[in-house]
Parts: sequence; structure tokens; C-alpha cells
Amino acid sequence: MTFSRPIAPVASALREQFRTVRAASVALAAPLSAEDQCIQSMPDASPTKWHLAHTTWFFETVLLQPHAAGYQPFDARFHYLFNSYYEALGPRHPRPQRGLLTRPSLDEVHAYRRHVDEAVLALLAAPEALDWAAIEAIVALGLNHEQQHQELLLTDILHALSCNPLLPAYKPASGPARRLAAVPAEVRWLEQPGGTVEVGHAGEGFCFDNETPRHAALLRPYAIADRLVNCGDYAQFIADGGYRRPELWLSDGWATVQAQGWRHPAYWLEADDPRIATLGAGGGPATPGGWQVFGLHGVRPMEADAPVSQLSFYEAAAYAEWAGARLPTEFEWEAAFDAPGIAQMSGHVWQWTRSSYDPYPGFRPLPGIAAEYNGKFMVGQLVLRGGSVATPAGHTRPSYRNFFPPAARWQFSGLRLAKDL
Amino acid sequence: MTFSRPIAPVASALREQFRTVRAASVALAAPLSAEDQCIQSMPDASPTKWHLAHTTWFFETVLLQPHAAGYQPFDARFHYLFNSYYEALGPRHPRPQRGLLTRPSLDEVHAYRRHVDEAVLALLAAPEALDWAAIEAIVALGLNHEQQHQELLLTDILHALSCNPLLPAYKPASGPARRLAAVPAEVRWLEQPGGTVEVGHAGEGFCFDNETPRHAALLRPYAIADRLVNCGDYAQFIADGGYRRPELWLSDGWATVQAQGWRHPAYWLEADDPRIATLGAGGGPATPGGWQVFGLHGVRPMEADAPVSQLSFYEAAAYAEWAGARLPTEFEWEAAFDAPGIAQMSGHVWQWTRSSYDPYPGFRPLPGIAAEYNGKFMVGQLVLRGGSVATPAGHTRPSYRNFFPPAARWQFSGLRLAKDL
Amino acid sequence: MTFSRPIAPVASALREQFRTVRAASVALAAPLSAEDQCIQSMPDASPTKWHLAHTTWFFETVLLQPHAAGYQPFDARFHYLFNSYYEALGPRHPRPQRGLLTRPSLDEVHAYRRHVDEAVLALLAAPEALDWAAIEAIVALGLNHEQQHQELLLTDILHALSCNPLLPAYKPASGPARRLAAVPAEVRWLEQPGGTVEVGHAGEGFCFDNETPRHAALLRPYAIADRLVNCGDYAQFIADGGYRRPELWLSDGWATVQAQGWRHPAYWLEADDPRIATLGAGGGPATPGGWQVFGLHGVRPMEADAPVSQLSFYEAAAYAEWAGARLPTEFEWEAAFDAPGIAQMSGHVWQWTRSSYDPYPGFRPLPGIAAEYNGKFMVGQLVLRGGSVATPAGHTRPSYRNFFPPAARWQFSGLRLAKDL
Amino acid sequence: MTFSRPIAPVASALREQFRTVRAASVALAAPLSAEDQCIQSMPDASPTKWHLAHTTWFFETVLLQPHAAGYQPFDARFHYLFNSYYEALGPRHPRPQRGLLTRPSLDEVHAYRRHVDEAVLALLAAPEALDWAAIEAIVALGLNHEQQHQELLLTDILHALSCNPLLPAYKPASGPARRLAAVPAEVRWLEQPGGTVEVGHAGEGFCFDNETPRHAALLRPYAIADRLVNCGDYAQFIADGGYRRPELWLSDGWATVQAQGWRHPAYWLEADDPRIATLGAGGGPATPGGWQVFGLHGVRPMEADAPVSQLSFYEAAAYAEWAGARLPTEFEWEAAFDAPGIAQMSGHVWQWTRSSYDPYPGFRPLPGIAAEYNGKFMVGQLVLRGGSVATPAGHTRPSYRNFFPPAARWQFSGLRLAKDL
Ligand SMILES: [Fe+3]
Ligand SMILES: [Fe+3]
Ligand SMILES: [Fe+3]
Ligand SMILES: [Fe+3]
Repeated sequence: MTFSRPIAPVASALREQFRTVRAASVALAAPLSAEDQCIQSMPDASPTKWHLAHTTWFFETVLLQPHAAGYQPFDARFHYLFNSYYEALGPRHPRPQRGLLTRPSLDEVHAYRRHVDEAVLALLAAPEALDWAAIEAIVALGLNHEQQHQELLLTDILHALSCNPLLPAYKPASGPARRLAAVPAEVRWLEQPGGTVEVGHAGEGFCFDNETPRHAALLRPYAIADRLVNCGDYAQFIADGGYRRPELWLSDGWATVQAQGWRHPAYWLEADDPRIATLGAGGGPATPGGWQVFGLHGVRPMEADAPVSQLSFYEAAAYAEWAGARLPTEFEWEAAFDAPGIAQMSGHVWQWTRSSYDPYPGFRPLPGIAAEYNGKFMVGQLVLRGGSVATPAGHTRPSYRNFFPPAARWQFSGLRLAKDL
Repeated sequence: MTFSRPIAPVASALREQFRTVRAASVALAAPLSAEDQCIQSMPDASPTKWHLAHTTWFFETVLLQPHAAGYQPFDARFHYLFNSYYEALGPRHPRPQRGLLTRPSLDEVHAYRRHVDEAVLALLAAPEALDWAAIEAIVALGLNHEQQHQELLLTDILHALSCNPLLPAYKPASGPARRLAAVPAEVRWLEQPGGTVEVGHAGEGFCFDNETPRHAALLRPYAIADRLVNCGDYAQFIADGGYRRPELWLSDGWATVQAQGWRHPAYWLEADDPRIATLGAGGGPATPGGWQVFGLHGVRPMEADAPVSQLSFYEAAAYAEWAGARLPTEFEWEAAFDAPGIAQMSGHVWQWTRSSYDPYPGFRPLPGIAAEYNGKFMVGQLVLRGGSVATPAGHTRPSYRNFFPPAARWQFSGLRLAKDL
Repeated sequence: MTFSRPIAPVASALREQFRTVRAASVALAAPLSAEDQCIQSMPDASPTKWHLAHTTWFFETVLLQPHAAGYQPFDARFHYLFNSYYEALGPRHPRPQRGLLTRPSLDEVHAYRRHVDEAVLALLAAPEALDWAAIEAIVALGLNHEQQHQELLLTDILHALSCNPLLPAYKPASGPARRLAAVPAEVRWLEQPGGTVEVGHAGEGFCFDNETPRHAALLRPYAIADRLVNCGDYAQFIADGGYRRPELWLSDGWATVQAQGWRHPAYWLEADDPRIATLGAGGGPATPGGWQVFGLHGVRPMEADAPVSQLSFYEAAAYAEWAGARLPTEFEWEAAFDAPGIAQMSGHVWQWTRSSYDPYPGFRPLPGIAAEYNGKFMVGQLVLRGGSVATPAGHTRPSYRNFFPPAARWQFSGLRLAKDL
Repeated sequence: MTFSRPIAPVASALREQFRTVRAASVALAAPLSAEDQCIQSMPDASPTKWHLAHTTWFFETVLLQPHAAGYQPFDARFHYLFNSYYEALGPRHPRPQRGLLTRPSLDEVHAYRRHVDEAVLALLAAPEALDWAAIEAIVALGLNHEQQHQELLLTDILHALSCNPLLPAYKPASGPARRLAAVPAEVRWLEQPGGTVEVGHAGEGFCFDNETPRHAALLRPYAIADRLVNCGDYAQFIADGGYRRPELWLSDGWATVQAQGWRHPAYWLEADDPRIATLGAGGGPATPGGWQVFGLHGVRPMEADAPVSQLSFYEAAAYAEWAGARLPTEFEWEAAFDAPGIAQMSGHVWQWTRSSYDPYPGFRPLPGIAAEYNGKFMVGQLVLRGGSVATPAGHTRPSYRNFFPPAARWQFSGLRLAKDL
């Protein structure tokens, strides 16, 4: 890559973007106490403090140590503590024990962030001296990495709070819950022609390696729903015995339903849940079915026209089966991104697709330690498309491939229906 | 489907085919004692006796009970004991406890087989009275089902015998191990043009629902190896630290290597394995590296030019990474089936592909209880193509999709390399 | 120890005893098929065939190899396969995998028994040449060891058969179930003075090391029930909510009740149990409460005046608490052995005591490999006293200490009440 | 019980004692951050904050709610959150999830403590109006309960800090580690006559129900070591292969050694431990063997003459076996409490005995909810006697029975040898 752009204004903009993204992480953690920020509620979720430190470690390790001459690490031991999964970087603190790191303290982690922020900004202040193309790519990766962790910071703390029988709010709602639509809107089916479509990342901007190379795919004609499946829809599935009918479920899904005792989405509460009845969580007027839903604002009455969320792939697939439809493939979803009349494609919930997370034809991982970023997870997971309320603005795009194992249900994950024509 | 064929000769041929396939199951079990046929060595494997009974149950349940007027079940309780996973048919004996069924005895299971065989042959002897199209399809499904279980019967008993420290043979080799090729043949890369290819089952014969519908797929140009990866190749991977280098492995694969202590394929034994050294299993002249391999004929010196087998997907993918290549996708494999110069496409080992087991576009499961046959397993598994030494002759075809979870390694499963052009 | 006895008649008697005990094991296995004799239903239970081989291995290892000049082992590999837990003898086949030993076959194990029997009888036929005191002690230990395994052979196969949903009988009852007593007999409390009592083995005959040394113990005055708790008693405990009232249970016991879903003794079946209702097990006229009980003769209606059996220590202790009584200590039990009016002290069920299995003051294990026989298990277990229907005649005695972990409930284990005065 | 004492001064003294004990808990937590106080490192250990709240809940539940007219609970939901194991008080927060309670915050827990402290002191300020005998007993129980939790607070936070690879100190040592004795002192064996001894609590002061009733026990003559086993002794056991020789271990102990990979006491570090070598924990001059030991002051060189601690019963018993001795029974220990020349009986480490935690003859639990305090744990545990550096001054006594399961090794637990005469 060669640069004909003048570097100084680009570097200046990047510094500003760096400040903005880094500040956003701190702001997300602000409503939480040091205690809140320390705990880990399951091996798949990490403490807030760990997210704050790990994203900092990423800049220190990938940017500063190789590229900032004379950089002094804040604390050499953090290399061990805050590496997530990079085997090439040696042994690291075991993931399931991240919640045991009461030391370093939250204050020390903030000092760590400031130390690294200053070094990064100083580095970017003298761009002419640098291998700018490499630096710019690394910073872009680091910022997108940090944005991914911003979403995880929210979904992980939400999971932790959901394990507290008091079901406390991440932060109080700023106003009353909005009035519910009396009747859920009918779904409209948008017919798509299929054929040969181009998928994967196009253009100049940042993307992850798993979105490349852009390539052609063949689609049959199909229809896709204009909106997400909402809570009212999903409550009908439950009321119709959805969680008791094996014929609707994939085999592994049914085994999970039985082993885990699933009867509704992860954060739904039945009207007689003891956490409401005895411990006083929740409140507000009863909804049809009496469902209450835990979320970032605590427990609120279920809103029928809000997208259903915190759903596993297994539940999404069973719902689709029940509805006489199916999930779209990731390419059907991508091809319909700009379809006239389509809504809620991003900013509400990630949408499970019927596509396993396989490499694209010709896929090559990034060079260096970033090679471990995406490719090594390409087995046993499903692709989600879109983006959620917890996704930082501007972070996602139509070719973006999110991925989780089929039983995961602590994300803002829901679904949109599709069907064959 | 309408039939202009005269039914009688077709029915006669089907009766003959039925006799042949059913007899083959019994013949496969013949070298085994009643004790051998009773045990279950892990939840994923079933006892020989259970395979003999379950395949019989399938004919009883799917063919005789709905279609043979006046059929009397051999024993009403077998409906509970020998259902495998059909939820629509009600509760059933738990899979992990199949090895505890010492009763019914093996003799009773043979009597059950004879009872059902007679009823089926009697039914097929009067084809004019029947809904022949339906009957023929069911019998074909039942026979293909039985052939699948014939392969599993072998892989399952082999696993069971591998758990015996004496490593007994399923049956003695009929002759000496063949002479080893002094030098493994070089792999030749067969270049394929890619483009739009038709995949999935074509033609009149039997196929499973997961092979349909036939559809077009787009392939980039690629090269595929003319032969399978053999034991000599794989021994080099081991010698080069293959099982100690995380950068070669998918994340889940590396976790499995560490958790399970894998250091070689499932049935390979190191030269100093106490089962050889102390208990006297194996024998024969030492090979380079000293490897011995357990198989249907017991422990034999590793043959460098024999295809490597009993490999998980994780190991296959790590080997490919080490070799600077990759696994073919299932469609690349299928498109290359008749490529000039290609060898060992079937009859040696099933070949892991880099394709998750997802439904084909427009996939519809079979109607009735056979709906549970394939579709409900379409998550979390990988496709294997080809066929193995344990696959009954004539059972497989180029469009055949076998599937197993990525950690499974008790099958005759190996790999063939591919690469981008 | 010196012997003034003439050895020849003693040796002749010992040979006869050897033949009798050895034949009894074979006779116990006779009603079982080779399949039955091969399986293992849980890690704590062993296959019948393994019991037959292991008791033989014991004679081979402890008697023949050190003492029979020129003895040729039947198969050197059996040393590895049939060692139970003797660390001093090197590595051995893992206990949880005993059920995977389809080879050696049952026929080979019988040949092994004959080989060892002949060698032992030959050895004992020339007693003058021997260190007879040592030999006699070893043979006595070996025969008592075999008798212990005879009881386990029955309890283990009963557990295995209980895992078969058909609930087959070990052997059919020889006659109709006996007529039930219309009213359970009142318990009579036998008052005992306590004081200083001598406990532990006395006299010349065989005993295990854990019964020694005989020593004095201090007892408070107490009362002990003249009879065992019977099924009718126990059914009242269940009917009174015994399995739902945590205040009756030890903490670990209540945790087990909840984790395992216990609602009645291990082999009791509720009237609507699907194994009776659907699979046709059991039968006979309904009893009050509708209970049926699985046992060596299959499923039979519960007999109110039969001792309750297959009970864990936790259940025994909870029952005693419910009854306003307690379990006797092992010394209270032993001191009351000959109390006037006491009944059912042996030959019905082993009786849980309120004594942990600790070493006696001055306890010394046997020398040599027999040191591992008892002492190393003296933690985490409870003492049972008496003897059961499955205990070979003449095997037990008042000082005999049986022991099992508190959750074990596949033995013929029940209880007798005691209380403070 | 009738009181001829004037109540006012007694009540005044009790108020003072209450203030002292309650303040001690707060002081113990003071060196810890809110983060430190929130986490739970294993199901058996509780967060500091939870200890602070639970001991408060105990006074609220057992004292204030039944006896303080008009008492208003601080927060009704705490009844659910901070009940430990009292089944009679209804459902409660699951023990393994105590570390997820970031709310209530530490500040709120301190406010809870103040609220309850004020109410207790107000109650005790008007003793004439009360059923004083009952109140005094409850307060004494509550204070002893709190002292037990003070010790657990330390052992639990020490375990949590031991899970942090930085091995931080609970608080820095106030001075340099004391100079090591060049040669461990020889053990002297104190011969005891045995005979009939009285054991159990005597006198007027407080004791727990499990120390009663006082009763006679018979002891054989025995010898007991004048001092504890120290680290230098134990290092010799390790150097002599103690952790690799099964013959030294109880069967369950050896299984635990293998399953857990034990090679030394819980908080010992080998010289090449990566936490020292890489992360910089520990320091100080190397000792013979290079052992370092983690403790309340962080990692320090092993002191040969300090009592070995953080030992399981299994390790204690194996050490005794290796030393040709045994553990004392709890009554031998109690009878030797005042033996001339005996040292280190309390204030260093709790001492494992060879006595299972069984009820004393005639044992009766306390009435009311305190019935669940001790009795329901009387199975599967071993008695420890003495008291440790972490035991509050004045809390323990010669008849005090501490108890833990045999594998527990996060306590200040060590051993003293005994032997038969
Ligand atoms: Fe990351
Ligand atoms: Fe099948
Ligand atoms: Fe034995
Ligand atoms: Fe407590």
C-alpha cells in the first residue's frame, strides 16, 4: 500500500478517534462500582476491569512494544495477566480465573490505561518518523478490537448482574418504558431474486480478515422478513409449547433445553419468579403472559414489539421451525441489506443466521500475532449478522461477521425469518 | 412417482437385496463373542448387539407396523429398548446405557431378527397388494440405514477392543502385513478450474435427504491432492512437533489436544507403550519411529503408505496447516470426484472436509418419522466425504455426506489435501 | 505361632473348605449368561466375571507365586488385569473400565480358575513341606476374601440388572411370595446397661485385621430395638414426607437427596413407574402404597414385614431421626449381640451404625501386600454390622466390621434403631 | 437456669464484648479493597463482605427478630442473601454464587452492620426487660459464631489471594522474617498413661453443643510429640518421595494426590515456580530445598522451624506414616493438653486428629434454629484440635472440636505426632 495522502491530518484524525474510542470504554464502566467491575460470572464472560486492561494490553503489545522506541511497559507482569488467547505470546492467566484478579486494582488499571494512552498519542504525534501504513492499520485494528470489547463489557456485566438475585440495573432507565403497541405489526415478506451476488468486504475502510476475500455466491430466490422477531411473537411460541416440543428443535438444541431446563429466553422472568415475588425485583404493570425482562435498566415489563434478545441459535432455529420458516443464510442476509422496505438490520440485536462460521474461499488470516484474531475460531460456531444496541456506533457494517457457539445466549442476539420461494 | 415397471421382478430383486444386506450384519458380528457384542465403550458408540436389534427395530417400526396388516411385534418392549433417537416415537432407553442391556440376550436378538426378516420377506412377496412406491422407498431407506450401522458396528467394536489393554483383534489378519513401500510417493496436485458446478444427488437411485436438492455452487480454481495423506506423511508431522505447536491448531482443537493429552492418532501406539512392552500386544518388525497401529487385525507395525485413519477433524486441519495446504470443501471434493489421476476417493477412509454440515439450499427433510433422520443433526458437525474400508460395497456415492463432530476420532477418518490456486 | 496339631488332617480339611468356597462362587454365577457376567454398571461395582478372576488372582499372587515352587502363571497379563487396588503390586487395569474386558472370555476365566485350583490343591496336598502356619493363614484370608466377593458378586449384578428397564430377575423365585403379616409387629426396646465392654475379635478363628486388637470400650446405658426396621415402617417415613423434610437429614444427606432426586430406597418402585406400567416389570397384587421392590427374584410387591434394604447411611440416619431414635454405635451393636430377645442380628441386612470406620486403638495392618486390605480405607466410611442374605454362611461374626461410604445404597443394607436411656 | 447475679454489670460487660468482637471483624477486613472483599475463589470459601454480612444476619435473625420488640430489618432481602445453611429459615442464595453479589456494596454492608450493632446494643442496654438467660446465651453464641467467621475470613481471603498469580500479601510483614534455626529441634515423646479420662466441655463458660456431654473415655498408654511437625520435617518427607509413594497414603488420599497433582502443601512454591521466576512473587534468600511459602504476608522463604500448615488430613496422615508414627485421637490430644513439657497446643495451627467427627454419646443439638449449627455436619469429616494464628484470642479451649473434610487444605491446619506405647 502506498500513501499519497498527507500524513499529518490523517494522524491527527486518528489521535482524535483514539481518544474517543478509549474514552468510551471508560464511560461504559462508569456506572459500575469497583466490585461490579471485578467479578466474572462464567468462564465465557470477563470482568469489566479485565476488558479495560486487556484492550490496553493489546495496544501495548501490538503497537507500542514493536513500534514505539524506548517504550517502557507499565508493569511487565501485565503481559501475563491480560493476554486473552494469543498462544504465540506465551502462557497467560487462565480465562476462567479472570474474576480472581482483585489486584491490580481498578485504580491501577486506570493508571495503566493512562500510561498507554499517553504513549500511543505521543507515537501518533510524530507520524512522519513511522512506518505509517503499518501503524495506521494496527491502530485501526486496536480500536475495532476495543469496540468489540465494549459490547462484551456490557453483555458480560449484564450476565453478572443477572446472577444476582436482586437483579440490579446496570443503570436506571432515563424515563418510563415506552407505551406498548397494542398489536404487533404483521411481518411483511420481502422477495429477493437471488442469483449471483457479491459478498464480503468491499471498499477502502477497515474490516476484519474474516470478511475477506470478497467473492461471488449463488443464491436461490428467497423471501426475508422486513423486521425482527419480537417479544410478542416469541411469547406465542412459548405459549404454544415451543420449549416442550422436540420436533421443533435441532438434536443438540433439544438436549440443551432438557439439560438446562430452558423454558424461555435467558433474561425473561415468569410472573411468579421468586426474584420478583419475594425479593422485589421488577415491577411495572403486568403484560399479557405476565412476562418481565431483565436488561440494562433492570427488570421491566416485557414489551411485545421489542425485538426478542438473549436468544441462543438453538432457540432461534426452533422458533423459525415453529413459524414455518427458517433462518436466512449469512449471504441471504447480506444480499438483502439494502432491500427496499427492510428494517432493523442493525442497532437492535445481532441476528443468528443458518450459516456455520467457515472460512471464505481464499481466506488468509492477518500476518503476525493478529493471525490468531479470527481464523482459529472457525469451527463449531454460527454467524450472526447486523449489530445490536450494545454495538458502538459505526463499528459494524453489512459484511461484518459476528460468531458465537449455538448455545450462547448472553448476547443481544435475536433473529429475523426467511423462507424459500 | 408412478411405476410403469412390472412390480414382481423388482420386488423379487428387493427381497434378494434385503436378504443380502441383513445377512451381512450377522456376518460382521460373527467373529465376536456374546460378551464382545454386549459392551459399550463410550456414549457415542453402541454395542454390536444393539446395532443388530436397532436395525431390526427400524424395519419393524417404519415398515411392518404401518404397512403389514396383522403384524405381531416380536416383543412390545423392544420398541422402548431399540429406538435410537426418534423423539416422535416416545421415550426410549438412554443412549449411554445401551451397554447395560444384557437382556434380551444375543440369542433373543437373533430370534428378533428372524421374526422381522420373515415378516418383511412375506410382505414383499405380495407386492401387488401394496402401495409399492412407498414400500420400496422404505425398504431402500431401511437397507441403507442398516448399511450405515454395519460401518458403525465395526468402528464401535474397534473402539471397545481398543479399551482392552490386551488390544485383541476383531479378527486375525488373513496373511502377513504387506511389504512397505520404501519411499512414500510424492503427492501430485491436480488443478481444477472451479466455476459453477452442480452438486448434490442426481439420477434415479437412492440417496439421503441431506444430499438434496441438487444445486449449483461456485468454486474458485483450486488444486487437490491425487492421494490421501498417509501414515508416513503423518509421522513426519508428529516428528516435527505437530502435537506441541498451537499455531497449527484451531482454538478448540488445541484445547482438546491439551485436555485429552493427544500425541498421535487414536489407535497409534508409541514403541514403548506398556501395552506392547508389558502386555505383549503388537509385534512385528519395528518401523521408522517405532509406531504400531491398532486395527481390525490387532496391533501391527505402522505402514507408511497406508492412509492415516482414526483422525479427528482437528488433527486433519492441523496437519493441513503444517503442510502449507488446507482441507478441500465438500463441493471441491465432489467436483473433483472424477478428475483424471485422482485416486483413493472411496474405500479407504472418510475424508474430512472444510465444510460444516449445513442444510443445502432448499433442503427438505423426509416426511414422517424419517424427518428425524438427518436434518436435526445439522449443527456443530463437519462433513466427511468418500467412504472407508468399513463402508459396505455400493453404499456410498460422490454426493454422499457423512458427518461427525470435530473431536470424533473413532471412525475410519483421514484426509486429502487441497490448496488455492 | 507354633503348631502342635498334626498338620495332615488340618490340611485335608482346608482342601475341602477350599473346594467348597471356590465352588460356591461358580454356583452363584451359574444363573447368569456370559453377557450378564461381563458388564459393569457403575465404577463401584464389578462384573461377575471380574469377581471370578480377581479372587483367583488373589490366590495366585498371594499364595502360589511366593509359596508354590515352580508355579507357572496361567497368563502373565492377568496380573495387570485382575489386581484390584494393591499399589505395591504395580499398575493395574482401571477400576471403571472393568466392564470393557470382554477378553479374556468367561470360558478362559473358568480355565484360569481350574488352573489355580489345581495348583492350590496340589500345594495343600503336601503340607509337611510348607511353612504351614503362613500357608494356612494365607488360605484362610483368600477364602474369606472370596466370600466377600461372593456377596459383592450378588450386589453388583443386582445393580446391573436394576439398570435394565426390563428389571430381569437374577433367578426366578422358587415359590410365591410369602403371605404378608397383617400388622407389623411392635418394636420392643431392649435396655442395655452399658459400662465397660470388650469389643473386637476374640478367640482362635479367622478375623480381619480391622477387628483387632480386642479392647475395652465404655458405653452409656442404652436401648436397642429387638428387630430391624422393616419396609412397612419405612413406607410410613416416606408417607410422612421423609424425603422432603431437610430437618431430618444430615447436611450431606440432604444435598444427596436433592442432587439425586431420591424419593425412596434404591430398588423400590412407585406404583406408576413406567417400567411396571409400560414395560411390564413386576406384578403381583398391589400392596398398601402400591410399592414394588426389585430384588434377586425380580420385581415383587413390597412386603411390609421384610427388612428395608438397599438403604444409604443418610437414609438410615434420617429414618432414625424421624423415629425419635438414633443408630447404635458399632460397640453398642456388638455388646448387644447376645442380648436376650434380640433378633435379626445377622442374615438379613447389614446394619448401618453411627460409627465412622476408624482404626481400633493399637491397630496394625497385616504384613506384606495384605497390609492394603483394610487399613487404607479407614476414612470417609461408616461401619455396618451383622450380615445379609447375600453373606455366605459362616463368613461373618459379631466383631465383623463391614464398611461403605455414606451414600452407598446398592448393598443389602438396612438399620436397627437405638436410643439413649 | 436462674440468675442471682445482678444483671446490669453483666449486661454492660456483654455490650463491651460485643463491641470488641464486632470491631475485630471490621479491622480484619480493613487491609482489603472492596474488590478483594467481593470475590469467592471456590465454593467452600466465602467473600470477606459476605462474612461481614452473614455474621450480622445471624444477630438480626436469632437475636433481634425474636427478641427486640419493634425491630425493623435493615433490608428484608438480606434474609435471603446472607443465610448460610439454615434450612429451617427457607431458601437462600446458593453458596457457590456468593462471589457474584457485588450488590449490596461493601458500604451498604457496613451500614447494615451499624444498623444491627445499634439495635443489639440498645437491646442489651435494658436487660431487666428481657429474658436475660436466653438473651445472654444467644449473644454468646453470636459472638463465638462471629469469631469462627473471623478465622474463615482470613483463610478464605488467603485462598483467594493464592489464586492470583501475583500472590499479593493480605498485609505486608511488619519486619524481616525471623532468623531461621539452623537445626530443627529433636522431637521429644511425652509418655501418657491413658486409662479412663474425662473429655468434653466442663465448667460454666461458653461451649458449642458438639463438645457435650462431658463423658469418660478409655485410652491406652501412648506417647505424644512435644511439638508440632515443622516445615523442615515436612521438607524431608517431600525429599524422601512422600508424594510419590502410595504405601504411605490412605486410598482416598492417594487418589486425591494423583487427581490434583499434589506435590507439596497448598501454599508452598518450588524454587522454579513461574510465579516467582517470571512474575516476581516472593523473594528473600533461598532456603535448603529452595521452598518459598505463601501466607498472609505474601511469599516468604520457608522457615524450617515454623509449623507446617495448609495441610490436608490425607497429607498429615501420610506424613505420620512416613515418620513411623500416627496422628493422636482427639481424646488423646485432649488428655495431653496440660502434659508437662508439651508445647504449641494452640495458637499456631489446628491439628488434625485420627478421629472422625462423630457425635459424643448422649449428644443433643441446641434447640431452635441453632440445632443446625453443628450436628448436621457429623459425617465425612475429621476433628482438628487446638487453634491457629488466625483463631481469635480466647475463642478456643481444650475441648473445642473443629472439623473439616479430609481433603481440605486451605486452613491453618497441621499436625502433631503420636504413637502407641
Ligand atoms: Fe480481545
Ligand atoms: Fe439408526
Ligand atoms: Fe478383592
Ligand atoms: Fe455462619
